[in-house]
Amino acid sequence: MITIQHPEQMQAKAIELRQQGKRLVLVPTMGFLHEGHLSLMRIARQRGDVIITSIFVNPSQFGPQEDLEAYPRDFEQDEGLCRNEGVDILFYPGIETMYLPDVSVYVDETLLSRGLCGLTRPTHFRGVLTIVAKLFNICLPHAAVFGEKDAQQLRLLRRMVRDLNFPVEMVSGPIVRESDGLAMSTRNKYLTDNERREALCLRHSLDLAEECYAGGERDVSTILDAMQGVITGSSSGVIDYLAAVDDENLEAIDTIDRPALIALAVRFGEARLLDNTVLGL
Amino acid sequence: MITIQHPEQMQAKAIELRQQGKRLVLVPTMGFLHEGHLSLMRIARQRGDVIITSIFVNPSQFGPQEDLEAYPRDFEQDEGLCRNEGVDILFYPGIETMYLPDVSVYVDETLLSRGLCGLTRPTHFRGVLTIVAKLFNICLPHAAVFGEKDAQQLRLLRRMVRDLNFPVEMVSGPIVRESDGLAMSTRNKYLTDNERREALCLRHSLDLAEECYAGGERDVSTILDAMQGVITGSSSGVIDYLAAVDDENLEAIDTIDRPALIALAVRFGEARLLDNTVLGL
Repeated sequence: MITIQHPEQMQAKAIELRQQGKRLVLVPTMGFLHEGHLSLMRIARQRGDVIITSIFVNPSQFGPQEDLEAYPRDFEQDEGLCRNEGVDILFYPGIETMYLPDVSVYVDETLLSRGLCGLTRPTHFRGVLTIVAKLFNICLPHAAVFGEKDAQQLRLLRRMVRDLNFPVEMVSGPIVRESDGLAMSTRNKYLTDNERREALCLRHSLDLAEECYAGGERDVSTILDAMQGVITGSSSGVIDYLAAVDDENLEAIDTIDRPALIALAVRFGEARLLDNTVLGL
Repeated sequence: MITIQHPEQMQAKAIELRQQGKRLVLVPTMGFLHEGHLSLMRIARQRGDVIITSIFVNPSQFGPQEDLEAYPRDFEQDEGLCRNEGVDILFYPGIETMYLPDVSVYVDETLLSRGLCGLTRPTHFRGVLTIVAKLFNICLPHAAVFGEKDAQQLRLLRRMVRDLNFPVEMVSGPIVRESDGLAMSTRNKYLTDNERREALCLRHSLDLAEECYAGGERDVSTILDAMQGVITGSSSGVIDYLAAVDDENLEAIDTIDRPALIALAVRFGEARLLDNTVLGL
């Protein structure tokens, strides 16, 4: 495994590898890697010759009141994990090489980014799309792998690839969960022991939604009410959103008559946790 | 020369040519080609193995009251001109393959796009940056050639390449003028005979600015006043803007103590004409 810190060196390396006929697969991360990230690296391994993992805590996707400073970092541990997974190139750029002081060009999305996380994080997806566009242009991957836990992000990135014609195959990896069902997330680190126990209600609420759907229920408000009961009845979690939307365009729906993303964001103390499932696929 | 109409075919062809080790150079145009465009194709020929010219009248860079419908088109003539210039691939996509009905991702610029043309054309540069990002991703050029007549556009595109890390070398071609000095432009076609004569004042005003500078004048308002006198004194042209700005960041300046872009946009009847020069390079 080689570690590259400068975007220009990474881009030159990617061009060189492409000229050698290698197929490059990128796994973008913000580091502090867990089993969820590692599962994406294993998917990447199936999809190409050279796995590139980027580690960059992207400031432009954090809002002014958010946890940029607190976001956990452990480069040495991450490096070891990447090496164990057979990552070929670890791209670990410094902030000053990624954003010049007079940066002024951004990628924006105007429809899918409005709801869900976009409601409380109005600049988040501009930050995500811009950094991923940059990483695509720097690492020049044939394919890129993203986790399904960040459901809205995944759909927005697919939309960016489509609308800006990036020559990148988008691959997604299923949510990886702890043995008791909690979706893995770097932000789980913020949970106290009690919050960690309470946070299981997220998976339980999604289980209930899946059971309702399997039992023939198609009415969104009935399903969401039942989910909300599970969360508020068994935890101190504060619901940011709990929504059923069209799985592709993320518009709110009343009836599950097409593939529907059931997505939620709930705050437990310092941690804002996401989870989701798709019904009707 | 081959003509390709579908973005996916163009992208596949570009990938194939790159794998063969060819160097691709793109000249994006809106068609109705004149000697200015042809000069860019000749520069492209010096810079690579395969010249790609795109012809696409991009609706998203026209405002609602602008001349999208009236914009002149002549594909057969353009095709012949490209063939004569040794263009290898003519990319001529249909609007429906370039913008899907639910398009929602755009490239925005927040600093350099504010002034000059951005003042009267608030959505223009979003349209330009987005289409060029798309063309870069579809045609995958090693280099791209743009004309210096569209001075703000050129500087914005350079900024986009820098901030989004596009692996594309930006090349510019000098303004090509009619024998009497009028900068070549597709929109010159809109001029009546009388407006065509009057429009020479644009070049005359820039000549005067160059003479003032050569004579030691560094005060911007003195230079712009003299230019304005030439334009209003000898024509019915309506000045949209007449400005001296920092050549790189396009911020207004009072004194020409660094490279300065002197840029103007003036309306003659239906035609809004641009011209510019750089002082102090």
